[in-house]
Amino acid sequence: MKGSDSVTRDFVLTGARIATMNTGETPYGLIKDGAVAVRNGVIEWVGDTGDLPASYAGLTARDMAGRLMTPGLIDCHTHIVFGGHRALEFEMRLNGASYEEVARAGGGIVSTVTATRAASIETLIANALPRLDALIAEGATVVEVKSGYGLDRETELNMLRAARTLATLRPVTIRTTFLGAHATPAEYKDRDDHYIDEVCIPTLRAAHAEALVDAVDGFCEGIAFQPDQIERVFQVAAELNLPVKLHAEQLSHLGGTQLAARYGALSVDHVEYANDDDARAMADSGSVAVILPGAFYTIRETQVPPIGSFRNRGVPMALATDCNPGSSPLTSLLLTMNMGCTLFRMTPEEALAGVTRNAAKALGLKDRGQIAPGMVADLAIWDVETPGELSYRIGFNPLHSRIYAQTQEGTS
Amino acid sequence: MKGSDSVTRDFVLTGARIATMNTGETPYGLIKDGAVAVRNGVIEWVGDTGDLPASYAGLTARDMAGRLMTPGLIDCHTHIVFGGHRALEFEMRLNGASYEEVARAGGGIVSTVTATRAASIETLIANALPRLDALIAEGATVVEVKSGYGLDRETELNMLRAARTLATLRPVTIRTTFLGAHATPAEYKDRDDHYIDEVCIPTLRAAHAEALVDAVDGFCEGIAFQPDQIERVFQVAAELNLPVKLHAEQLSHLGGTQLAARYGALSVDHVEYANDDDARAMADSGSVAVILPGAFYTIRETQVPPIGSFRNRGVPMALATDCNPGSSPLTSLLLTMNMGCTLFRMTPEEALAGVTRNAAKALGLKDRGQIAPGMVADLAIWDVETPGELSYRIGFNPLHSRIYAQTQEGTS
Ligand SMILES: [Zn+2]
Ligand SMILES: [Zn+2]
Repeated sequence: MKGSDSVTRDFVLTGARIATMNTGETPYGLIKDGAVAVRNGVIEWVGDTGDLPASYAGLTARDMAGRLMTPGLIDCHTHIVFGGHRALEFEMRLNGASYEEVARAGGGIVSTVTATRAASIETLIANALPRLDALIAEGATVVEVKSGYGLDRETELNMLRAARTLATLRPVTIRTTFLGAHATPAEYKDRDDHYIDEVCIPTLRAAHAEALVDAVDGFCEGIAFQPDQIERVFQVAAELNLPVKLHAEQLSHLGGTQLAARYGALSVDHVEYANDDDARAMADSGSVAVILPGAFYTIRETQVPPIGSFRNRGVPMALATDCNPGSSPLTSLLLTMNMGCTLFRMTPEEALAGVTRNAAKALGLKDRGQIAPGMVADLAIWDVETPGELSYRIGFNPLHSRIYAQTQEGTS
Repeated sequence: MKGSDSVTRDFVLTGARIATMNTGETPYGLIKDGAVAVRNGVIEWVGDTGDLPASYAGLTARDMAGRLMTPGLIDCHTHIVFGGHRALEFEMRLNGASYEEVARAGGGIVSTVTATRAASIETLIANALPRLDALIAEGATVVEVKSGYGLDRETELNMLRAARTLATLRPVTIRTTFLGAHATPAEYKDRDDHYIDEVCIPTLRAAHAEALVDAVDGFCEGIAFQPDQIERVFQVAAELNLPVKLHAEQLSHLGGTQLAARYGALSVDHVEYANDDDARAMADSGSVAVILPGAFYTIRETQVPPIGSFRNRGVPMALATDCNPGSSPLTSLLLTMNMGCTLFRMTPEEALAGVTRNAAKALGLKDRGQIAPGMVADLAIWDVETPGELSYRIGFNPLHSRIYAQTQEGTS
């Protein structure tokens, strides 16, 4: 049953150890011998198995035999749609090639942009599916997907169309993010402002017109875009009523976090170089800190994000794979949780909240990430005793089964 | 077919990109369009598909459609047989508990010894199987298993019996290592010498008499045993004609490497604190350096093993999971390869050699770890283009299929 999907609408599950991830209760919102009742794919009731109301007696019931139940996992920051891969570059670097030599061999983000532009939408989808399947096999029910390797109108649109199509091919919810402000393409070298105004913003409008955009993102960094350039994109997002998020303070402190907070960002992502003032601004704006240990690990960063500040100021922390071909070719949320604990000293409860409740918040999803009445019944069932085991093990998948609850007949 | 096992004795495989891992040829010993011919589970011929001798025309042939073929992977350092787990301790520490509080709650190796002693052999086997299955699912065909959580005669023997039994339950070769000198049990507190002489050495003799021991190991460290105590165990190993290996220089430089080299050790393992003189001694003794990045990562060690010295002096490097419940709850050789590259700057070719050719050498196996005439036909087939991709990806399993070749009818 491992990795399999059960798509159902009305059912009862009993005898589970349930990590509801509801706050203000026991750690993990844990119910030791719990049950959930689901109608039309939505959780109607959760509580002690012994207290299950008689009104649910008519529904199909399954005994979970004491297994752990959690909300379905949510990967709230990925770049899984792209052409090619960068294994050759990875190998060249480890064999001692300089950055110049790698660049001359066509390495770096340029190679991914070239491969993505050259790929058909069918190829983009076919390449993304194994990555999506790896996430699903570990219990993911929601996956965010960004554009940003096209950097021209047609390819950016194709990436988002490919992402939307993934949701028709697998039982998973896909949230799309427009990331035109990811890098400046070669044809706009040293003309970043022109790229933003002539390509990025018009493409955002076109993508929005095609209903391809759930949120708008950017990369605010010395090697990418300055805050004023990002702000021009955010102004258009505001005009279109689209929420924003931002890759900020990953390699240096450029002020992107404060900018994002001013625009009420759903999340600020990476944030290794964020400081306590940034954390305060995020707390005020209700922005989630999306922690991405896979990139930290891969580029051997040493600056740890200010977890203590986020914790003390009540900034919700999410964890995501940042799956991308360059700085984080990572497709395991469980490993991401272990890295959050091991590299950043997050607690296992913070790690699980980071791929459920807070990941939902980072995507603006109010009906996912917790096991509570009114939430969509996306669930993961695990062959473990305690929720801490999900973060403890490394490179092991204890998923027993995954439930993806359609909330409307005939859609996914 | 993923993760499935094919147990066959006579066959031909064609159309594969073969990383033979034979030295002195192209990188990875690569054959671009290669074939292997196997009789009685042993490779008789390997070369270009177009050159396959007509004499193999009668054998069942399968076309690999350009997939990558490597030797079956070898995990040459594990502790997968144990009772309990240490997720609670992992969580307590991350929630701020001191070492004393963890110890008072029964944490540390003591908890694993207690759980292992309390477990029946059936429970030890049942607990180890999911860990073994995770390794097999990534293409492992040989797995080493150590004792060392019993620390009394009966439990040490039971661990080794459990390890031997694993080979009858799964298509995999198990190599057993006696690690009585792993830690001093509570009942011998402050009487390490008595433990060595009264328990460890007599148990080694008993285990050898029961044919349970393929090699003898120890843990030479301030928190474990001193070189002179290890040497007494090695003397008995020499008397019994058993090869030795050693956990050495993991947390400090205690001289275990030089001791192991004097005894012609198959391998010296961990070696973060080894120096260039140690590397020279290992080169002279032909010992393999077994690199264990999972433990380095988990305990957040900062001292990197002297990879450059090993490389320059021609010390073969292996990579292994060190799977254990405390310092490396890791069950992925692919992730181990990525960690070897990312954390220690090993090349992808060194990483693959580390889980094939050099891992075989660390176990004293002369007929595994390469695709060459005379080698047992343990093979892994991968859905990747280049061998570097095996190290590049993180938390992704591209195994297409795994071939475990029985060399004798009716045995495994
Ligand atoms: Zn990103
Ligand atoms: Zn070990």
